[in-house]
Amino acid sequence: MIDLIGDERLDYLLAEDLRIIQSPSVFAFSLDAVLLARFAYVPIQKGRIVDLCSGNGVIPLLLSRKTKASITGVEIQERLYHMAERSIQYNRLEEQIHMIHGDVKDVVHKLGHAKYDVVTCNPPYFTSNSPDTMNDNEYLAIARHEILCTLEDVIRTSSQLLRQGGKAAFVHRPERLMDILTLMRSYRLEPKRLRFVYPKLGKEANTILVEGIKNGNPGLKALPPLFVYDDENNYTTEVREILYGKEE
Amino acid sequence: MIDLIGDERLDYLLAEDLRIIQSPSVFAFSLDAVLLARFAYVPIQKGRIVDLCSGNGVIPLLLSRKTKASITGVEIQERLYHMAERSIQYNRLEEQIHMIHGDVKDVVHKLGHAKYDVVTCNPPYFTSNSPDTMNDNEYLAIARHEILCTLEDVIRTSSQLLRQGGKAAFVHRPERLMDILTLMRSYRLEPKRLRFVYPKLGKEANTILVEGIKNGNPGLKALPPLFVYDDENNYTTEVREILYGKEE
Repeated sequence: MIDLIGDERLDYLLAEDLRIIQSPSVFAFSLDAVLLARFAYVPIQKGRIVDLCSGNGVIPLLLSRKTKASITGVEIQERLYHMAERSIQYNRLEEQIHMIHGDVKDVVHKLGHAKYDVVTCNPPYFTSNSPDTMNDNEYLAIARHEILCTLEDVIRTSSQLLRQGGKAAFVHRPERLMDILTLMRSYRLEPKRLRFVYPKLGKEANTILVEGIKNGNPGLKALPPLFVYDDENNYTTEVREILYGKEE
Repeated sequence: MIDLIGDERLDYLLAEDLRIIQSPSVFAFSLDAVLLARFAYVPIQKGRIVDLCSGNGVIPLLLSRKTKASITGVEIQERLYHMAERSIQYNRLEEQIHMIHGDVKDVVHKLGHAKYDVVTCNPPYFTSNSPDTMNDNEYLAIARHEILCTLEDVIRTSSQLLRQGGKAAFVHRPERLMDILTLMRSYRLEPKRLRFVYPKLGKEANTILVEGIKNGNPGLKALPPLFVYDDENNYTTEVREILYGKEE
């Protein structure tokens, strides 16, 4: 039993294990969110995780399959927060996942300093003055552009939430690599693992995955490249397994 | 006619087009230098190029095949400087390549501020207190470790030598990516092109190639990954072509 509003759909997430409410006109998760949920190291048995800019809750839902830790999602748009809440209920994950309808910039007051083991975030990628801002409706514009939340807001907040040695994992675009690495270091989230995602062999990267450790020592690993499509434009084996699980 | 000293050899460089003097106990060029010479954008018809930490002159020699610009190599070790000089003479490149026996830290006084179009450098990769410093002889230790020249020296000098819009291209290790990007930005060499080199598919990167533009605008491209070996541990087609030229 679930209430779907307007053009919302109840989509499958990770084969048939989970379901998620989305809507083409409000919010639909991207491959980037799935890659980030896979990329992030999380404690398996216990701990506390925060996902910032949660949207329809896709990352908390995906992380629930990797960890028994408690997961808090933060989303500023009430419409998206409400989608996430209903998906969590539908999947009977109310015990593990708690959504907060709030602003990343204030959330440290609610959640406390240095109490979390992991922070994840798939933030808005584009600056607020990008030319295509106008083409988006307000829901999509806020999710995609730095209108209510900048990269610096995300990184400052992540650093404040994390305990010493806690991990922050982000997904972003290569054009912003300099910004994300510089901000991470300046907020003492030392970048430790970096993975470039390429649409296919021979193309420029279009996505980066990066993990920093709160007050970690310098020393970055550049992980093997991730290719999304093969020469025939089918998902590569790695991406197919991330999306649909290993074939038996 | 050429004088070879001690265990020096007269090796082929790029198929049989060029020859270079090297010595296993003093200095022998690595694949990284070849990749950097290929990666760097250089003006074709004219211009002024500096190669810092030139060693036996491998990068100036390789660049001479891509450009008619004048090329200045800077090497602090007299023994290596002398090897480079003899290789330049052997290849009859004295008109195009000039070696300076000098210190990167002083070289701006000799060469002048903001007069160069391109700076390249394959610097010492390891900090001076790395544990394996002791295993190297003095020649190799100076070439590999930041004993006489740190990454910051290289980047500061590169920025001072370059005109507005000039390009600096470096090769380094992924562990130092944060340092190199942070230093480049702080010395106004905005990173614009970044390429990761992986020993083979599925392995972590072991080399990075990065180019910055003096006073350039932010915005980095992550180029397609470069793989050195294929599954059978043979050079990939791309590396074979860089090393030996395209097959007819």
